[in-house]
Amino acid sequence: MNQFMQAAIEQAQRSLDNGGVPIGSVLVHRGEIIGRGHNQRQQKGSAILHGEMDALENAGRLPASVYRETVLYTTLSPCSMCSGAILLYGIPKVVIGENRTFLGEEALLRERGVELEVLDDPVCRELMTQFIATCPEVWNEDIGEP
Amino acid sequence: MNQFMQAAIEQAQRSLDNGGVPIGSVLVHRGEIIGRGHNQRQQKGSAILHGEMDALENAGRLPASVYRETVLYTTLSPCSMCSGAILLYGIPKVVIGENRTFLGEEALLRERGVELEVLDDPVCRELMTQFIATCPEVWNEDIGEP
Repeated sequence: MNQFMQAAIEQAQRSLDNGGVPIGSVLVHRGEIIGRGHNQRQQKGSAILHGEMDALENAGRLPASVYRETVLYTTLSPCSMCSGAILLYGIPKVVIGENRTFLGEEALLRERGVELEVLDDPVCRELMTQFIATCPEVWNEDIGEP
Repeated sequence: MNQFMQAAIEQAQRSLDNGGVPIGSVLVHRGEIIGRGHNQRQQKGSAILHGEMDALENAGRLPASVYRETVLYTTLSPCSMCSGAILLYGIPKVVIGENRTFLGEEALLRERGVELEVLDDPVCRELMTQFIATCPEVWNEDIGEP
């Protein structure tokens, strides 16, 4: 298992352990994690802190030159909002744990030149499958579905 | 002047008065403001709290049914991240103060069925023109430009 995806999964697991949506992310710059985060909908009552957004926020303010040398690792395919953040900051590569339980804006990201790698990781899939079965209302709220 | 754009401009002005990027937004549900916000890069050291994101966060957790009856008023054309949030939550209409100093993802939003109204408001333009001239580094950082 890739060490950075493992760190993202640890974030997802930490969120789950605290009753939250089990999606985690890490931002990696030149081989070093500079931001870690997970979905904060339940924990902070947040409408915008998806795993990717939380990792970007925790990485702090950065110049474009840094973002352009980063890779974002995330346990789930990034939604429209998180994909938009990836495009805003020109993050060139995203490694995705899985996209079977939710398929985000992968087509748009590829069209705009972002390199994507989908691991189809069984741990990532299992985290989401269980959560969606247990808390469908929270999950639907998280992705703007009725 | 539209009362909701006026409220968004008040947010932008408040940000400027505190040394921040002068972009403000309000989320309106059935004629009532349910979230107000402004760019928080300088004030909170935030990489993700653009004006629109701050307004969404301040509106709190909402079900899809509410977002789908909202209008987002924002003083500046929404960037990729904020446009992605608009798409995630299915916000059907966005009223934009101006798009001359920065043109965001208006084409993508229209393509996805979001109704846009651009006011080309001189107060919104002046706020940004002055800020970009005074603090170009902060502005470039805010939009992921080198």
